[in-house]
Amino acid sequence: MTVQIRQLATTTQDFDTEFRRVLHWAAETDHAIEQRVAEILADVRARGDEAVLEYTRRFDGLTSETVAALEIPRGELQAALEAITPRQREALQAAADRVRDYHQRQLDACGRSWTYRDVDGTLLGQKVTPLDRVGIYVPGGKAAYPSSLLMNAIPAKVAGVGEIIMVVPTPAKGSIATGGTGAAGGKGERNTLVLAAAAVAGVDRVFTVGGAQAVAALAYGTATIPKVDKITGPGNAYVASAKKHVFGVVGIDMIAGPSEILVLADGTTPADWVAMDLFSQAEHDELAQSILLCPDAGYIAQVKAAIDRLLPGMPRRDVIRASLEGRGALIHTRSMEEACEISNRIAPEHLEVSSRDPQRWEPLLRHAGAIFLGAYTSESLGDYCAGPNHVLPTSGTARFSSPLGVYDFQKRSSLIEVSEQGAQVLGKIAAELAYGEGLQAHAQAAEFRLNDTTPGSLK
Amino acid sequence: MTVQIRQLATTTQDFDTEFRRVLHWAAETDHAIEQRVAEILADVRARGDEAVLEYTRRFDGLTSETVAALEIPRGELQAALEAITPRQREALQAAADRVRDYHQRQLDACGRSWTYRDVDGTLLGQKVTPLDRVGIYVPGGKAAYPSSLLMNAIPAKVAGVGEIIMVVPTPAKGSIATGGTGAAGGKGERNTLVLAAAAVAGVDRVFTVGGAQAVAALAYGTATIPKVDKITGPGNAYVASAKKHVFGVVGIDMIAGPSEILVLADGTTPADWVAMDLFSQAEHDELAQSILLCPDAGYIAQVKAAIDRLLPGMPRRDVIRASLEGRGALIHTRSMEEACEISNRIAPEHLEVSSRDPQRWEPLLRHAGAIFLGAYTSESLGDYCAGPNHVLPTSGTARFSSPLGVYDFQKRSSLIEVSEQGAQVLGKIAAELAYGEGLQAHAQAAEFRLNDTTPGSLK
Repeated sequence: MTVQIRQLATTTQDFDTEFRRVLHWAAETDHAIEQRVAEILADVRARGDEAVLEYTRRFDGLTSETVAALEIPRGELQAALEAITPRQREALQAAADRVRDYHQRQLDACGRSWTYRDVDGTLLGQKVTPLDRVGIYVPGGKAAYPSSLLMNAIPAKVAGVGEIIMVVPTPAKGSIATGGTGAAGGKGERNTLVLAAAAVAGVDRVFTVGGAQAVAALAYGTATIPKVDKITGPGNAYVASAKKHVFGVVGIDMIAGPSEILVLADGTTPADWVAMDLFSQAEHDELAQSILLCPDAGYIAQVKAAIDRLLPGMPRRDVIRASLEGRGALIHTRSMEEACEISNRIAPEHLEVSSRDPQRWEPLLRHAGAIFLGAYTSESLGDYCAGPNHVLPTSGTARFSSPLGVYDFQKRSSLIEVSEQGAQVLGKIAAELAYGEGLQAHAQAAEFRLNDTTPGSLK
Repeated sequence: MTVQIRQLATTTQDFDTEFRRVLHWAAETDHAIEQRVAEILADVRARGDEAVLEYTRRFDGLTSETVAALEIPRGELQAALEAITPRQREALQAAADRVRDYHQRQLDACGRSWTYRDVDGTLLGQKVTPLDRVGIYVPGGKAAYPSSLLMNAIPAKVAGVGEIIMVVPTPAKGSIATGGTGAAGGKGERNTLVLAAAAVAGVDRVFTVGGAQAVAALAYGTATIPKVDKITGPGNAYVASAKKHVFGVVGIDMIAGPSEILVLADGTTPADWVAMDLFSQAEHDELAQSILLCPDAGYIAQVKAAIDRLLPGMPRRDVIRASLEGRGALIHTRSMEEACEISNRIAPEHLEVSSRDPQRWEPLLRHAGAIFLGAYTSESLGDYCAGPNHVLPTSGTARFSSPLGVYDFQKRSSLIEVSEQGAQVLGKIAAELAYGEGLQAHAQAAEFRLNDTTPGSLK
């Protein structure tokens, strides 16, 4: 059965309407989840460790006398690294090295303090410092991605964060968190590859707690789990809701929507490659979105044929089909220029410019989380090991937000040291404006620093 | 009547308890406001201009046939600049020049795109681009601060934002927005100094709408008011709630709490200066917080005496007294080192190091929105014209967030162009990790780019 993926053309009259329909995706707020999460947060805030233990028992089927017993000692992370295959270990370490190198360059490019002095000798600048302590949420079970842990922890390490606390649920089989009834219990399921990645990334402490209770523990602190300054990392609807709730108490990264890829093709890349790139987004999740924009109708037909031919061989074919049929699109454009314009309207998370001449189109592309240039740059290389971060803005938020980076684990403080001479100039300007705003104490604080208080020119 | 400001000493046994009491401030969520704001947002989203007109009539007592008629033409901004006094004009322009210069240096320090090539010729980097369009909210009435407009608009201009849309309510006397019954109506009250500042800052368009309806119009767009990518600027509880609601649809800046100053004094600055600096924070609002930390008890007594002596001369003495008595504190510390430690626990918005040797203490200060060094650097000079931004993280959020800056009006896109040779190395690493995560399409997309597909070492 061929894949029923939407095919549009910009030349048709109803294109705009059809196109808006493709793009439309609204995160539904689930009020029951919001309410439940608010209760869990309040409870952990009030009762600390005790509440964490209770929710971990209830949702993950994991019984423990103390939260301390839920901590995984560093030795066990190292043991996990030794337990995986040499090839896996080599791949993890190679990926970590490249990700570290890229983020080190990011730090060099924009993460340093700077100061200067003006003509009056007044010092001005900004001091850039790492966050003291960061919490990283790592999902348990089937959505546990070691690559995601690397992408969150390494920029924090490069920024110089003092301590990284990881939380990861390890639900027992049959527990509520694994979709069971909660009747079963026993030992939580740990993901060896994730723990090995924690060792490689240099995570400081790991607690096997998850859900809203883990977010609450990190945000407020408990007797055992230290309070952090920022929480990053993906999670389910409860985790996302909890992060939104605690925003302001701590910093958070973005709340991600479904993943998206947009392929802008000039028809020179093997059609099979592009089809597989569309699959690689679609296999994440039925809500994931894969779109192809191309001015060559013949090439679109080739990609469509490749999709139909390759799909049956994919282990995750059901998810891929549902995603492509529900949210995918093959769009025939008038030109590559028009394709670039449409791409800017979408502001995709992942943007592949599968062209013989990608540098020609790159300057036209204003909004995207990551831009993958040329036929050899499959999104999956970027997802794992090219170096740049794979945590990217989704749902069009690339119009105003950025990939996760070293800058997310730093904060800035303005530095001002006004010289005596500078105070003579600035004091008059500040006083004039402060009186204009009706803030007399502001004005007088400036005037107290004037040596000559006779009114006169501002200069 | 002397000011009943709290006096603490770190040597007393109950200091920690007392100190926590001083710091405690929790933003209450007003569910009635949240609910009302959600309705207004939904209504403006659905009915656009019509809803904006209706709310503007209802809350601001301002009747208009069209939203277009609520736009202030650029000529009127220029006329406002000519209507203010020459001294005001000079002060506005001098402040704008210094703020622009500082933010230009910020752009130079960290706002540029960068790329590099690895040994395989793979290109990696990050493209930094300005936001297309930004909305700036400016409060109306008594809290209308031209300086705040400069601080929001200038970094956006320096970043290269394409278009700046300002919204400002101009409620008629007697309208609900001015605390009236809504019975009165007529022409809205415009603040000439604010409009003059808009001309100086180079704001592109100004609409006289305010409240949640203005935030909604900017976030969703209406037939007349263009949709923006990010909304910044201060506002009342309705505006703050509306900004939180639309976060994700657009970017927002921080949601500010009450303003704070912490003065770290070694006792060498004239006590009157420090007293006036504490006043300058306290005069904002009864919830504003002014704290002095000093190891010299005699100096604390001098500052206390200055407070009592200077207060009666202040026009805003009632607000200052309420703020100092409700939330202020004079804290005697064992040493300057201990004062620095306490300052880090507070993570204040404004931190004055009023010391003969401020550079000695600066390295010990890890968390603050802005650090004002030395006796001549009154906070008020920074508020108006030193150059750094006066929009700063409050309520301890300086632990994880930064002053408003050029970076808030830019976003980043990762750039990756993998060479054919690079794909041979990266493909094997990515495939290994992708299979480990059960994502076979990711693995195959990487493998399709391999020239030699026989399994072998990753190297």
